[in-house]
Amino acid sequence: MPHFSYHSLYQLAYQVFLAMGCPEADATTAAESLLIADLRGVDSHGVARLAGYVRLWEAGRINPKPNIRVVHQTPSTATLDGDAGLGLVVAPRAMQHAIQKAQQVGTGWVSVCNSNHFGIAGHHAMQALAQDMIGIAMTNASPLVAPTFSVERLLGTNPIAVAIPAHKQPPFVADFATTTAANGKLEILQRQNADAPLGWVQDQHGKPTSNAHALKHGGALLPLGSDREHGSHKGYCLGAIVDILSAVLSGAGYGPWAPPFVSFLPLPANPVGKGLGHFLGAMRIDAFRPAEEFKQHMDNWIQRFRNAQPAEGYERILIPGDPERAAEAERRQRGIPIADSVAEELHQLAKKFSISWE
Amino acid sequence: MPHFSYHSLYQLAYQVFLAMGCPEADATTAAESLLIADLRGVDSHGVARLAGYVRLWEAGRINPKPNIRVVHQTPSTATLDGDAGLGLVVAPRAMQHAIQKAQQVGTGWVSVCNSNHFGIAGHHAMQALAQDMIGIAMTNASPLVAPTFSVERLLGTNPIAVAIPAHKQPPFVADFATTTAANGKLEILQRQNADAPLGWVQDQHGKPTSNAHALKHGGALLPLGSDREHGSHKGYCLGAIVDILSAVLSGAGYGPWAPPFVSFLPLPANPVGKGLGHFLGAMRIDAFRPAEEFKQHMDNWIQRFRNAQPAEGYERILIPGDPERAAEAERRQRGIPIADSVAEELHQLAKKFSISWE
Repeated sequence: MPHFSYHSLYQLAYQVFLAMGCPEADATTAAESLLIADLRGVDSHGVARLAGYVRLWEAGRINPKPNIRVVHQTPSTATLDGDAGLGLVVAPRAMQHAIQKAQQVGTGWVSVCNSNHFGIAGHHAMQALAQDMIGIAMTNASPLVAPTFSVERLLGTNPIAVAIPAHKQPPFVADFATTTAANGKLEILQRQNADAPLGWVQDQHGKPTSNAHALKHGGALLPLGSDREHGSHKGYCLGAIVDILSAVLSGAGYGPWAPPFVSFLPLPANPVGKGLGHFLGAMRIDAFRPAEEFKQHMDNWIQRFRNAQPAEGYERILIPGDPERAAEAERRQRGIPIADSVAEELHQLAKKFSISWE
Repeated sequence: MPHFSYHSLYQLAYQVFLAMGCPEADATTAAESLLIADLRGVDSHGVARLAGYVRLWEAGRINPKPNIRVVHQTPSTATLDGDAGLGLVVAPRAMQHAIQKAQQVGTGWVSVCNSNHFGIAGHHAMQALAQDMIGIAMTNASPLVAPTFSVERLLGTNPIAVAIPAHKQPPFVADFATTTAANGKLEILQRQNADAPLGWVQDQHGKPTSNAHALKHGGALLPLGSDREHGSHKGYCLGAIVDILSAVLSGAGYGPWAPPFVSFLPLPANPVGKGLGHFLGAMRIDAFRPAEEFKQHMDNWIQRFRNAQPAEGYERILIPGDPERAAEAERRQRGIPIADSVAEELHQLAKKFSISWE
């Protein structure tokens, strides 16, 4: 698998966003949002999606020069209309609003409509860390997930990210799809023609299946918990909460009306809202207790969990954010591995936009 | 199994709380908080726990006349010290603060330390509904849950409740432990000497087991997801987030330092904070969009999900809150079924405090 430097991939993404018509500042923000996924090992949400964004733009579903505006607000809240912009640009803007509100009244909460796929949730939540704030980010997404007891795909993988600062320890960064497995993991198995573990997907009748291609034949991803006996109704609740806060609260397309990421699928008929929705939050630590005191207790929390006794066959307990930090350290040094098919796609994008690259 | 009326059980609980020394208003609040669990079918959190609260009071761990006070605040946040009061009283008070803040600046967020077990989370979240607000409630709890890859019990079942108002439809009320199965469900199997499904608990070596008594022998409850392959690291993240927002943010005992509910277990040595912690939130709907508009879209959301096509073998898709509403309708009419052992315990409590009952 070829490796690319952060700089090289960043430059390509930046040039592609410029070629789409994004202003320089937005192209920078979008390229950063995208590349952070590749750095942190979330390959499904990095440059592998660049061609997908371009296709959405070609289909007229992404506005490269959005007028992102506040349509409603209170001292601690705002609703933003993303004007069909790139989620990679809209979400950081919304997070800035949340942080500003938190600076003024302790917390800030921003619901966003009329946006598009925002990349990895963790990146947006982490913007709060440098301000000694807890950051929260969620988004609804293309409907691929069946609620417990159903065969219909009514929810997206609807991720939740929560970033919490510590003192000497690295921050706690949870970032996860509210499904048993993220769609990106299933796509890896599809490319390998490998079986999926039972509990990740169901077939068109709602029966468990190990067929990683089941979604192509009317199957669905399963909510976290896999089945009722193992708590899938809780994963369904989580996905639903993300959908409602991101899309019903903001005026975006919710549930099965969330617009698909892939441009070859039609937009939903009889839309109930505009575009995709996000929900961003920021809470000032010192709105609850002195920040230094909190961060020292977070160090203690992290160390206690890190030092917990491992189960047989395991070396150590991980803190949320550890795997992504390890990936970032390795990839900043050795470069970012890119699948051959993705590398080929990137070369085609460079050619398409006459970008001199690699 | 004997059935009791709401009124009868309420009167007993109210008299017991009065006998513990609670002021009348607090005894009312506590009895209501407790009974709502029995009404809604969450038997493990209702009058079955009354004797446990009494034992904690006898051990000097519950203060019946707490001076619940705000120790820190901003326009949208507050930190409350529950003064070792009943969580059943402290949490509703904290929710009132959250609602008042939301009335003023759009949202309100209250972290609580120095409290005790608060009953069912859903009840506290639902206080926001009548104000056209979204209510959120969480709490940390006695450590019974092992993080992914560990054999140590470092987290509680740490529930999350989110209540969202609708228009003509009943509200969306999610209320769930962040473990695969709540401890109450395991206790039912223990009483029946029945096996637990694999994925609910692990043994002292961290291996899967169907022994419902495994916790007595060094085992642990498992985070939602059951094992790494099925996303238990996500359940671990959720439990950790609840622990941090409820306890690290407020100054309560977090992780393995959370005080146990049972009075026969000693309080943790070298405490890192005071008592148990909760986190309550309220968000005004019209801080984001007009409330009527939102609630009509919630009706549409609920109807679309309720009418989804069921999987083979299932009749219909449930909306979060449906099972509890069905239990409440049935129990208000036919009375509340109480296990013989619990009924016997209640009679002993009545005798102990010279309460004329049944």
